Amino acid sequence: MAPASRPLSTRAPASTSVTLADVAKVAGVSKITASRALANPDIVSAETRKRVQDAVVQTGYVPNMLAGALRSQRTRLIACLVPTIGSGSVFMDAVQSLTEVLKAAGYQVILGQRGYDVSQEEQLVEALLARRPDGLVLMGTVRSDAARRRLQSTGIPLVEAWDISGEPVDTMVGFSHRKVGAATARYLHQKGRKRLGVITTGEPRGAQRGQGFLETARRLGLVDKGTELPTWRFAAPSRMRHGREGLANLLQQQPELDAVYCSTDLIALGVLTEARARGIEVPQQLAIVGFGDADFAVDTDPPLTTVRVDSVALGRRAAEMLMARIEGTAEPGQVVDLGFQVIERGTA
Amino acid sequence: MAPASRPLSTRAPASTSVTLADVAKVAGVSKITASRALANPDIVSAETRKRVQDAVVQTGYVPNMLAGALRSQRTRLIACLVPTIGSGSVFMDAVQSLTEVLKAAGYQVILGQRGYDVSQEEQLVEALLARRPDGLVLMGTVRSDAARRRLQSTGIPLVEAWDISGEPVDTMVGFSHRKVGAATARYLHQKGRKRLGVITTGEPRGAQRGQGFLETARRLGLVDKGTELPTWRFAAPSRMRHGREGLANLLQQQPELDAVYCSTDLIALGVLTEARARGIEVPQQLAIVGFGDADFAVDTDPPLTTVRVDSVALGRRAAEMLMARIEGTAEPGQVVDLGFQVIERGTA
Repeated sequence: MAPASRPLSTRAPASTSVTLADVAKVAGVSKITASRALANPDIVSAETRKRVQDAVVQTGYVPNMLAGALRSQRTRLIACLVPTIGSGSVFMDAVQSLTEVLKAAGYQVILGQRGYDVSQEEQLVEALLARRPDGLVLMGTVRSDAARRRLQSTGIPLVEAWDISGEPVDTMVGFSHRKVGAATARYLHQKGRKRLGVITTGEPRGAQRGQGFLETARRLGLVDKGTELPTWRFAAPSRMRHGREGLANLLQQQPELDAVYCSTDLIALGVLTEARARGIEVPQQLAIVGFGDADFAVDTDPPLTTVRVDSVALGRRAAEMLMARIEGTAEPGQVVDLGFQVIERGTA
Repeated sequence: MAPASRPLSTRAPASTSVTLADVAKVAGVSKITASRALANPDIVSAETRKRVQDAVVQTGYVPNMLAGALRSQRTRLIACLVPTIGSGSVFMDAVQSLTEVLKAAGYQVILGQRGYDVSQEEQLVEALLARRPDGLVLMGTVRSDAARRRLQSTGIPLVEAWDISGEPVDTMVGFSHRKVGAATARYLHQKGRKRLGVITTGEPRGAQRGQGFLETARRLGLVDKGTELPTWRFAAPSRMRHGREGLANLLQQQPELDAVYCSTDLIALGVLTEARARGIEVPQQLAIVGFGDADFAVDTDPPLTTVRVDSVALGRRAAEMLMARIEGTAEPGQVVDLGFQVIERGTA
């Protein structure tokens, strides 16, 4: 980073005390000209524009969007509620593309992080609403019914993104987790695998994928009536060790195991690591399927077979749907299924 | 997700048209009582509180913080500028703890994502400033000098987090990337390694770690004067394949290579994978050191030797320093070095 270009003692005063009149005075123009040069720089001369811009830097002036927002009833803020933003979060690629599309349209994203405490969710929603966002995006799942009802009651345009089960509060974009599980079971069946196991989180979306997998495995005759598939459940977030522990546990339940369905690619990497440590050949003795098509999935040895959801497209679409609702060009009730893709690589 | 509990056609009107007077009317109380019940619920009776809360839900009323912010000159918004928020971002654990500490103190975080286009950085800074945040956090590096000067000129309390090289614009918390590189070189020297290689990003912080590594390796006599360490550089973001390609390339430069220093743990995992694919024993024939202590580092086989920076503590400390500056209990100029730790595991 460049060092500070002037000593601290001469830093400009806090920006809120500098007004547009101060900028105009320093630039030697009228307040109206200064205002025009900032709001609509193309209508003033290049020289005027430069003088005003220099004066802005010199004075530390910060334009105030709050007053404008109060007048227009538009804040150009979008509130985005995410379960977690930590490095393991599967939502951040979608939030990234969402943010980029909204930024390009002059919106900014204010971030709400649900965290692990459901009881605080309603309070967080209330704090976000008080910012009067023009729209809301729920990434993943809002777990509290009270928070959900509250969001619904405000009538602010809203997109639920990631998951399209259930009825939308307003609009919804995502994919079916149950269908992901079903497609994976069909895939392993086609590959001739017969003794399946599942390693999954207990959180609702992972559990739905596991449920879809089990139902389809049953229908395909891979599970006897009244019995369960060997399953290892762990609490989110996913860690590689859950895959290592999970495989060890599944092998105790079913020593003849020939395929494992994992709720994330990181889990699949853990299974692959544990299989190798035990001298189990992948995919000859054991097939492994992950979920998410993580960056590293193509680079493991062998490369991971997995299910890809286009998170970037999902975030972009969520942004577009929200803007259409804000601008009144779309009606509520829309549900967009972006689907998913089974990616065949080396592990299954 | 729970299905919508009422049909779409009867959704409440947009919240901005509902006033406190409407809430008071539905609750059957005066406007002052409604206001008290919302702002200071402990001073009204439980029954009144419930009536007002029910009326809020029924009408879809949303309190308006904007008016209050205009009066008080405080927005309780913090703007946080991050290079990227995608799933590979190393900053998100710090942003998560930052957000949690600020949320607990009644602040909200508005997110700015620099993206890959430096030319847009100044425009983004301007848009964030127009929200009149009470404070700013720069995670990672602001690359544009213009954006940096602009931030400096406003006089808004600011924390630069992640890196403590250079002079702070206001306050700074992080660690020295150069010292990380130096510590890693000393560590490998103590382990008796003599033919080192480096795999690093070209971005400034990775490059600084690489530089510190090289300087120390030179001083320890591990590199001849006028020669370079075998090095493989790639463009951020890190992917596992950069580690695989990097090792292949370093072995061409130096077939007797006995240690690799990697700029991230994901790169180290790629090196480990490639070494195994080539039948090179780790750590006997090749030592590997990563950076970041990623979630998976403890679960690879063998577990990764790496350098840990406490991101959660870093985010928390950045939040505390910023609040102290906003509340006027701390002076500008503070630089806090949180240090780092070499974590010895199985790969070196």
